[in-house]
Amino acid sequence: MPNKGELINQILSRGTEEVIDEAHLKDALSSGDTLRIKHGIDPTAPSMHIGHTVPLQKISEFQELGHTAVIIIGDYTAMIGDPSGKDKTRPPLSEKEVKQNAKEYKKQILKVLHGGKTEFHMQSEWYKGFKLTDMLDLLSRVSTSQLLSHETFRTRLDSEQAFMAHELIYPVLQGYDSVAVKADVEIGALEQKFNLLMGRTIQKQHDMKSQDVLMVPYLLGTDGKEKMSKSLGNSIDLTDEPEDMYGKVMSIPDTLIVSYAELLLPIEKQELTWFKEE
Amino acid sequence: MPNKGELINQILSRGTEEVIDEAHLKDALSSGDTLRIKHGIDPTAPSMHIGHTVPLQKISEFQELGHTAVIIIGDYTAMIGDPSGKDKTRPPLSEKEVKQNAKEYKKQILKVLHGGKTEFHMQSEWYKGFKLTDMLDLLSRVSTSQLLSHETFRTRLDSEQAFMAHELIYPVLQGYDSVAVKADVEIGALEQKFNLLMGRTIQKQHDMKSQDVLMVPYLLGTDGKEKMSKSLGNSIDLTDEPEDMYGKVMSIPDTLIVSYAELLLPIEKQELTWFKEE
Repeated sequence: MPNKGELINQILSRGTEEVIDEAHLKDALSSGDTLRIKHGIDPTAPSMHIGHTVPLQKISEFQELGHTAVIIIGDYTAMIGDPSGKDKTRPPLSEKEVKQNAKEYKKQILKVLHGGKTEFHMQSEWYKGFKLTDMLDLLSRVSTSQLLSHETFRTRLDSEQAFMAHELIYPVLQGYDSVAVKADVEIGALEQKFNLLMGRTIQKQHDMKSQDVLMVPYLLGTDGKEKMSKSLGNSIDLTDEPEDMYGKVMSIPDTLIVSYAELLLPIEKQELTWFKEE
Repeated sequence: MPNKGELINQILSRGTEEVIDEAHLKDALSSGDTLRIKHGIDPTAPSMHIGHTVPLQKISEFQELGHTAVIIIGDYTAMIGDPSGKDKTRPPLSEKEVKQNAKEYKKQILKVLHGGKTEFHMQSEWYKGFKLTDMLDLLSRVSTSQLLSHETFRTRLDSEQAFMAHELIYPVLQGYDSVAVKADVEIGALEQKFNLLMGRTIQKQHDMKSQDVLMVPYLLGTDGKEKMSKSLGNSIDLTDEPEDMYGKVMSIPDTLIVSYAELLLPIEKQELTWFKEE
């Protein structure tokens, strides 16, 4: 069993792409305070896949040190769809589909996280009663040029694909979640960096301490080419039957083995070195 | 007393800067239908000035033909402040100030319009119950590139002045008002063209017929230089005492006399020609 210092180092380095602010997070982890580790998931499909478990594995490392996982089921943002890295507006999901998916996600998340140290929140807890004046107040705290500096937005503005105005609000809603749950740290994929940093801005604008942000890579799908995604048919789903899961894992190209091991398996550093050498 | 054809010509030409779509509006005015003539005013100050009466005079011409004035008191948009032509974010008004101003505006508007043919609406009739899902639905019907094509927005993005994200929503809220009141025509100042056309877009996106838009110039202040504005101290207010009003009118430079006569006085064309010659 690794000691606290080793666990802190593992959190900050293993399968971690970037940390902002790393020195601050290191101090916070060493301080003895119980931190609130936020992670948001949009329930856009009926089941999760193992790509979703990469940030969850990272959160479970925080739980080993006694910190609290604060999982946000994005029942509002799912209706928009995260524009990050996307080249067009997503077809909208109905409230009913989102609610059904959300129920399944909770069960599946607890396959990875420690239930006793996990809080679940639906965005509807704070957004259901949100009025137009609340929305205007929230937007009045965000600079338009910061919002438009999102690389995805700039690319979309230059393309011919539809880019509708509700997508501009996505990062702001996601950011306000950090205020609502008083997050100390947020975990997300590197491609969500813009949204994660928006959380820091919006917390500051609400006179709160800005959360630290820890970014993990996304998992490639079983084709070894594209990001794992149910709609691309290259996913291993948490609801797959064991024999299907086994078959799919066996089918991945050798080049993926090390990253799958690093991101998904709770193995020690020396074993990982062995995997890499093999 | 001019006949109907002459009145229609007067509406379309006298003190009118631009009409979209002019041929359509001419047909509608000739059709015998009673049209709903929308005009929105943000109650941002405790009293109105004679610059505000320029569009109201135009609406009174429609009323002479039996059409209905539909005045929207922008109690929500006043909290944002119309960004059109402005170079920085306005200090926010409180709900209380806005409500107090709104009360005064109604009284003052009826100094120009025919009470029997005038409807007043507060935006709060439709925006008070607006939820976040309503806002997202509304924004999902507006293209981001159309929104950002607003010249004021582009200028603001290039400047160092604060430009906050709630200002992006202004034209959308103003545009949705046209859906809420089922406007056939909207009257406004030329500098508000972007907002007025947004009304056309948003009506179309709600499967309604797009309103026609008739734009009037703004009135210069008593200094003969800047647009009339209470905050610039060059305004003649509707609440001024008669002797103050007289004094201020007498103080205007000669170069303003013709435009004041054309835009403010209910005089006939031949008299206007006389003014110009003098």
